[in-house]
Amino acid sequence: MVGFGDDISAVRLSKRQIAVLKTDMLVGSTDIPPGMSMKQAARKAVMANVSDLAAKGIRPLAGIVALGLPAYLTRRDVHGIASGLAQAAKEYGFHLVGGDTNESKDLTISIALFAIANRGQLILRSGAKVSDIVAVTGEFGDTAAGLKALLEKKKHPTQLARPLYQAVYNPRAQLDLGLRLAASGAVTASIDSSDGLAWSLHELSEASRVGIRLDIIPVSEAAKKFAELYNYSTNDLALYGGEEYHLVVTVRHGRFEVAQRAARGKLKPVGVVTREFRGVRSRQAGKETIIARKGWEHFKGQA
Amino acid sequence: MVGFGDDISAVRLSKRQIAVLKTDMLVGSTDIPPGMSMKQAARKAVMANVSDLAAKGIRPLAGIVALGLPAYLTRRDVHGIASGLAQAAKEYGFHLVGGDTNESKDLTISIALFAIANRGQLILRSGAKVSDIVAVTGEFGDTAAGLKALLEKKKHPTQLARPLYQAVYNPRAQLDLGLRLAASGAVTASIDSSDGLAWSLHELSEASRVGIRLDIIPVSEAAKKFAELYNYSTNDLALYGGEEYHLVVTVRHGRFEVAQRAARGKLKPVGVVTREFRGVRSRQAGKETIIARKGWEHFKGQA
Repeated sequence: MVGFGDDISAVRLSKRQIAVLKTDMLVGSTDIPPGMSMKQAARKAVMANVSDLAAKGIRPLAGIVALGLPAYLTRRDVHGIASGLAQAAKEYGFHLVGGDTNESKDLTISIALFAIANRGQLILRSGAKVSDIVAVTGEFGDTAAGLKALLEKKKHPTQLARPLYQAVYNPRAQLDLGLRLAASGAVTASIDSSDGLAWSLHELSEASRVGIRLDIIPVSEAAKKFAELYNYSTNDLALYGGEEYHLVVTVRHGRFEVAQRAARGKLKPVGVVTREFRGVRSRQAGKETIIARKGWEHFKGQA
Repeated sequence: MVGFGDDISAVRLSKRQIAVLKTDMLVGSTDIPPGMSMKQAARKAVMANVSDLAAKGIRPLAGIVALGLPAYLTRRDVHGIASGLAQAAKEYGFHLVGGDTNESKDLTISIALFAIANRGQLILRSGAKVSDIVAVTGEFGDTAAGLKALLEKKKHPTQLARPLYQAVYNPRAQLDLGLRLAASGAVTASIDSSDGLAWSLHELSEASRVGIRLDIIPVSEAAKKFAELYNYSTNDLALYGGEEYHLVVTVRHGRFEVAQRAARGKLKPVGVVTREFRGVRSRQAGKETIIARKGWEHFKGQA
């Protein structure tokens, strides 16, 4: 078994077992928003990898790190990176067991995670079936709003800005939720929303060869307030933001209560899997609009 | 089980089995000598990781790649990288099953390899015992001479330069030899010579808490000729070059013939493990000199 166009790669070990491998690289010049500390950046580099395993319902067993460190980094920066790596591994319950350190012109934190799973245990992107319920594990828009707030360098009311900045600097992978949902047997497909809600829905739609109709666009309260205050589109913040790490799943028709129990009430149904079209549409007030396959863009060029 | 200061990291899977993980990153600004193609660089990035597994006697099962690609790379460059990665995986008999691509200011090729092994199967750096024979799988100096030839930009006689450039651009990991030597049961410690022969010997000496006495400094014919022509020290070329991927092993006293048969005659005995001192010494013409713990330095600053 080789890479199969999903968030992770897998290698067959035996009739039952597979080794799961995941790598994702954080690059200083494009992946670090203004004001993020080295510790936060390193933690996030690990977290982003964990998030992809979480979406597949797999617990990381161990990880390794390759670092490219620019000469301008201080000793304190390097300690921050080490500390962020350690914090993330602790947070998600595994060990970083080795690595490689290099000098580089661009800060590079390359993480590789390793896990063992039973075949058939992986929740792929491709399992969504017509009439499944589409659900998410959180509300969207905080990160997009937070990034806009940071990049535009306006003075924002603290109470408004705090949860937005928190979403940018300390995003969390939904590892426990992902494991519970996978174990429930009720989830047919899953992906994280790191490239944005719209992008994730399109990925599920394409991999599963189905259409997705969104009846609710799940926007956070803070993102709504931010959008109101600065005249942004709330839907755009929620759909095209990215760097958010909620799970986007499809739940077998008639099994939603099972999945919801497994998720301890944290699932929010937002739509349904359809056969009428391919792609992703939103239905609001009886009117259907096409949701573009647009994803997350890096800070570069936005700043 | 976590990282244990060797060339690879390992995680315990069961009473018998361990997962072996290895990561090593190639950085464009420091790891690519003048004239090396993108294909050669990508192949070398994989090869360097394989070499560390080879030294431990472990066959890679699968790998993943994270790339940081500068905007100035052409389509042809990117194809070259893909082609070099594929070539290396084919050469060493495993699959690259996934990866991650990013934009970066510095070319970065971060490889992570994965293998399964039985506990006790790993040949560590720390197993050398007093009176073991120290042996190598090749002669040294070609890469150091080749780099000097390239960096000094002199016009060199083709016949002299060709094998030296070949050593720089197309180094090979000794995977088959490493597997055979490990299977022979005669090898007590092993390391590759990617950081230079002197450095590798010091690593074995420290990890095993023994001394190493070199009776022969294994210099290649081409390096000798180059040294003569341009008045370099042959010993320096062989000892402090680096970026060479021979294996440096210690063989149990009385088992050298067994190891040599396994290696099909490719082992060259060069010294002995001693208890009289720590560190590494060379004995030539009855005189002992201390071999410095100096290693490979990157091209940066040498050019």
